[in-house]
Amino acid sequence: MTITITAFEHSPDGGKGLSRDTRVRWALEEVGQPYNVRPLSFEALKQSAHVCMNPFGQIPTYEEGDLCLFESGAIVFHIAEHYAGLLPSDGNARARAIMWMFAALNSVEPSILEIVVVKFAEGDKPWSKERMPLVFDRIRQRLRPLSARLGDAEWLDGEFSAGDLIMVSVLLRLRMSGILDEFPNLAAYVARGEARPAYQRAFAAQLAQATGT
Amino acid sequence: MTITITAFEHSPDGGKGLSRDTRVRWALEEVGQPYNVRPLSFEALKQSAHVCMNPFGQIPTYEEGDLCLFESGAIVFHIAEHYAGLLPSDGNARARAIMWMFAALNSVEPSILEIVVVKFAEGDKPWSKERMPLVFDRIRQRLRPLSARLGDAEWLDGEFSAGDLIMVSVLLRLRMSGILDEFPNLAAYVARGEARPAYQRAFAAQLAQATGT
Repeated sequence: MTITITAFEHSPDGGKGLSRDTRVRWALEEVGQPYNVRPLSFEALKQSAHVCMNPFGQIPTYEEGDLCLFESGAIVFHIAEHYAGLLPSDGNARARAIMWMFAALNSVEPSILEIVVVKFAEGDKPWSKERMPLVFDRIRQRLRPLSARLGDAEWLDGEFSAGDLIMVSVLLRLRMSGILDEFPNLAAYVARGEARPAYQRAFAAQLAQATGT
Repeated sequence: MTITITAFEHSPDGGKGLSRDTRVRWALEEVGQPYNVRPLSFEALKQSAHVCMNPFGQIPTYEEGDLCLFESGAIVFHIAEHYAGLLPSDGNARARAIMWMFAALNSVEPSILEIVVVKFAEGDKPWSKERMPLVFDRIRQRLRPLSARLGDAEWLDGEFSAGDLIMVSVLLRLRMSGILDEFPNLAAYVARGEARPAYQRAFAAQLAQATGT
């Protein structure tokens, strides 16, 4: 069955790969599944046809036959569950890989997305400048234990998994802030993720889309 | 195999059921699995024995034989995957139930947890009072489409699922704020969740723990 995902017609980051379609593209590249992309304008995102699919009016969504999903974590999980390459076959190792997906999305990403609130949603507020260091400190509170747990390991738990794919995608959002450089093993972990051929293909595809090339 | 979870020795909410062990207890009650609880003091949470299990030093964790998990979403998913009652058997319906778990944890809960930042982490800051309405507005931006999607339905997608269990658990955090009452169908949805016998048993168990009765 044909897989179709949605992505921004013009990504707000201009092709830095931070839009959430990149993690879905990466997962599809890891498992070797071809996919189509339906680009959506910001206006289309708010229209009912899309809202019926994703009530929160966001990208990416995923269509495959009768199945229609939104929420990048759920989409990556669905891909990982149905195609080999992103989840270990051992039951306990599989549960831990899924655990890292949830940990990345619920225990790490929210602290990082606060940067967007400070910079954009509340960028014009008088407290904006003073709040940024507090937000950065809360991010460090998450990165410190994550860095300690990763240690010298290549990936979070044995082989590369969907848990690493989501965690690297989440940490990539920190590149511009410089915080990642405070944790050299996490910076190296992210670099290992980016060096994977599947990530490279996914990145190139979203960049081509963003720049119209 | 015996299931053991961790919970706060003394829950910071005094037994209102907002600590994340409640959602795990609820899931175990829904699938009819007995469990033990290992209560942890705040000091114990930061000690290495616990940190080895959950690097972020939080409850709940889940032990079953050789398996050791943290992150409430991952634990509820593991329970739902291994015991009948929380995920539909139809493949597409199952994927959508899992999608709602991720949506609750990644698209709804982060906006709600910002209340904690305003009230506690930044409660002493001069901008605290002025920021609260902004945080409330961002919560409404999530609840409005969620309410529209739920409509008059009993649950988010057909039968009650792990997706509803997590979404209700997340929305329960809003009770004190009054925001939930602005969306009568969401308030009724949460009330339906709370009325389930399994939730009642889970709530009673965490309350007994919190109050030492």
